[in-house]
Amino acid sequence: MSSNRAATTLVDAPRGLAGVVVTDTRIGDVRGLEGFYHYRQYSAVELARTRRFEDVWYLLAHGELPDARQSEAFAARTAALRRLPEEVRAALPAVAAASTRSGPLSGLRTALSVLGAAQGFQPVYDIDAARRRQDTLVACAAVPTLLTALYRLVQGLEPVEPREDLSYAANYLYMLTGSAPDVRHARAVEQYLISTIDHGFNASTFTARVIASTGADVAACLVGAVGALSGPLHGGAPSRALDTLDAIGTPDRIDSWIRDRVLAGERIMGFGHAVYRTEDPRSRMLREIAQGFGGPRVEFAVEVERRVEAILAELKPGRELHTNVEFYAGVVMELCGLPREMFTPTFAAARVVGWSANILEQAEDSKIIRPVARYVGPVPPVEVPEAA
Amino acid sequence: MSSNRAATTLVDAPRGLAGVVVTDTRIGDVRGLEGFYHYRQYSAVELARTRRFEDVWYLLAHGELPDARQSEAFAARTAALRRLPEEVRAALPAVAAASTRSGPLSGLRTALSVLGAAQGFQPVYDIDAARRRQDTLVACAAVPTLLTALYRLVQGLEPVEPREDLSYAANYLYMLTGSAPDVRHARAVEQYLISTIDHGFNASTFTARVIASTGADVAACLVGAVGALSGPLHGGAPSRALDTLDAIGTPDRIDSWIRDRVLAGERIMGFGHAVYRTEDPRSRMLREIAQGFGGPRVEFAVEVERRVEAILAELKPGRELHTNVEFYAGVVMELCGLPREMFTPTFAAARVVGWSANILEQAEDSKIIRPVARYVGPVPPVEVPEAA
Repeated sequence: MSSNRAATTLVDAPRGLAGVVVTDTRIGDVRGLEGFYHYRQYSAVELARTRRFEDVWYLLAHGELPDARQSEAFAARTAALRRLPEEVRAALPAVAAASTRSGPLSGLRTALSVLGAAQGFQPVYDIDAARRRQDTLVACAAVPTLLTALYRLVQGLEPVEPREDLSYAANYLYMLTGSAPDVRHARAVEQYLISTIDHGFNASTFTARVIASTGADVAACLVGAVGALSGPLHGGAPSRALDTLDAIGTPDRIDSWIRDRVLAGERIMGFGHAVYRTEDPRSRMLREIAQGFGGPRVEFAVEVERRVEAILAELKPGRELHTNVEFYAGVVMELCGLPREMFTPTFAAARVVGWSANILEQAEDSKIIRPVARYVGPVPPVEVPEAA
Repeated sequence: MSSNRAATTLVDAPRGLAGVVVTDTRIGDVRGLEGFYHYRQYSAVELARTRRFEDVWYLLAHGELPDARQSEAFAARTAALRRLPEEVRAALPAVAAASTRSGPLSGLRTALSVLGAAQGFQPVYDIDAARRRQDTLVACAAVPTLLTALYRLVQGLEPVEPREDLSYAANYLYMLTGSAPDVRHARAVEQYLISTIDHGFNASTFTARVIASTGADVAACLVGAVGALSGPLHGGAPSRALDTLDAIGTPDRIDSWIRDRVLAGERIMGFGHAVYRTEDPRSRMLREIAQGFGGPRVEFAVEVERRVEAILAELKPGRELHTNVEFYAGVVMELCGLPREMFTPTFAAARVVGWSANILEQAEDSKIIRPVARYVGPVPPVEVPEAA
C-alpha cells in the first residue's frame, strides 16, 4: 500500500513555474547572457561543426562521446533500426489519411504511439537502464522513416525504404526524395540537426519528464513531448521566418515592411529569443552554412537580418533583438531541398534525441512530478439540486 | 519578436514539485483529512448518487449543472458525437493490431491522436472558448467508441456501432458486448464513471495542463495525459485489487496471506491512498453499490476488507490504511460484466472528462508552464576531442 502522505505545506510558485528548479540535469544547459549552449560538457555548436550526428546522439544517450569503435558500432546499430516493423508500416497509410487536416506533427504523434505499441515498449520503471536506452534508440532511429513515409503518403507517393549505408542525415534526405542527396546538403542538414537536439529546459522536454516520472513507456513520453512542441507558444517554426522573407519580397521593401510591423507592435518571425541576450549561437553557425552555399536568397536573408537589426536597435533601443535559430534554419533547409512543411518535423526528429536523454535521466529518479492546484471556486459542499 | 527574458532568479522546489502550487483551479479538490472530494462546489459522491453522467460532464465543461432543457440538449448533442469519422474507423484495425503487445491504454493513446488529427483539431490558443469546448466534447464522446472498438478488434470481433438512444454508460456497455445492458449494471457503471471524472491534481492532469499551456490542440493534451496515466506510479489500476482477491482465494486463507505480505513489506493492492487519511469516499459508495448486487464474491470482498483493515491496524498502528477506490471499483466492474483488461480504460474514459475541464481552464491562461533544470555536470566548455 502507498504511505499516507501528510498534508503538505503549500508553496506558492511564480506563474508558469518560471525559474523553479524542478530537477538537476547532466544533459546540458543554455547560458543566455553568453550566447552559449552545451550538451554535456561540450559546446553544442562545436559538436555540430566537428562531429557526425550519430556521435552526438551517442553522447546524449550514453553521457560521453564514443571512441572510434563505439562510433562505428552505434552508427551500424541505429541504422539497422531505421526499418519499421510490419504493423507500423501497415498502419501508416491510415495515419497519413487522418492527418492531412492537422499537419505533420499530429502524424508524428500518432506514428510514434503506434511504433511504441508495436514494439511492446514497457514502462520505464519496469525495465533496466539498458532496455530503456534501447527503446529510445528504436524510437529515435525510426522517426525519420516515419516522417518521410507520412510526408510521401500525403503527397500520394510510395514511402522510400531506408538505406543502412547512408548517414542518419543523408538517409533522411534520401527517404524524403528517393534520390541520394548532395553531400554538402546532407552535411548542412546534419549540422542543423546536431544543433537542435537539445536547448535547455523547455515545455516539451518538461512534458517528457513529467510523463517519464510516472514510469510510463518511452513512446508515451515522446508522444506527449511532440504534443507540447506542436503548441504555438512553444516556438520552433523555421517556416515562419521564410514566410517573413517571402512577405518582404525584395530588398527595397525591407525598411517599410519592418517599420510597419514594429510600429504595429507585431512580432517579426525569426527575431528575438526568450533566453539569449546576444546573437543566438545556432543562428551564427547556420548563417555561415548558408553563406557557404551563397546565392541571391542567402544574400537577401543577410540583408534582411542587417536591416531588421538596425531598425530594431533604433525603434527598440537596448532590447538586443537578433535573429534566432528559426531564421537561418529556414534558409538552410530550403537550400537543401526540404519542403517547408517538413521544417518543424525535421526539428522534431533531432529533438527526439534530446527528449530521450531527458527521459533516461528522469527514469533514474523514483519521484513522480506532481505539483498541486489551489481550489479557488465557491466553497463546497453546496447541496446538489434535484435533476429537473 | 518575443521579449528577452531577464535572467530569472532560481527557486529551489521540493522534490517532484510536491506541495508547489502551479495554478488556481475552479474545477475541484480533495480534502484528504475529511474523506471528501468535490467537482466545482458539489460533493462528487453526491453527484454520483443523484445525477446522470451527462449532467456531471456538463458541470465540468460548463462550470454549472444544466437545467432540464440544457441537460436534454447536451445529452443529445454528445450522443450524436459517438459515431467515429470514417478516417478513424479505417485506422482502428491497424491500431488494434499494433497494440496487442502493450495494452489498451497505448491503443487509446493512438486512437485519440488519430481522432484529433482527423477532426482537424486546432491549437487551443488559436480558437475561441466555444470551439475548444466543442473539441473536448468530440473527444470525450468518442472515447467509449474507440475503446470498445479496439477491444473487440483485438478479440477478433467486429466493432459495434454506437446507439444514440442509450445513456453514455449504457451505450458503453452495449458497444462492448453488442447487447443492451441490464439497467442496474448501466447505472452502477455510470456511478463509478461519475466518481472517477476528477480527483484533485495528479500527474496526468498536470501533463494535460502543461501541454495545453503551449497552446497545443485538445488531442495533443489528452494523448499526453493518457501516457502519464499509463505509468505504474500514477496509480488507478482496479484490476490489481481483484488480483488480490483471486490470490487469497478463500476466506480461511485471508489472515495468513495478508500477514505474509505485510511482514514481507509488500503493498496490498486496493489498500492505502496518498491523500486520504480516512476511508476513501469513493470506496464507501462503491461498496454500497456492490452490496446492492450481493452474492458470494461481494461477501468475500467485504470480509477481506474487514480482515485486512484489522490486521493493518494491528501491524501498522496509526497508519489509517483503508480500501482505496481500486478495491470495490474492481468488484463492481466485474459484477457489471466488464472484462478485467477494460477496467483501467473505463477509468480513463471518465477521466478524459476531467482532463478536458483542466485543458479548458488552462487555455484561459496565456502563460506557458516551463520550470527550469539546474545543470550539475562537468563544467563546459571542454574541448571536443577529434573524431577518431
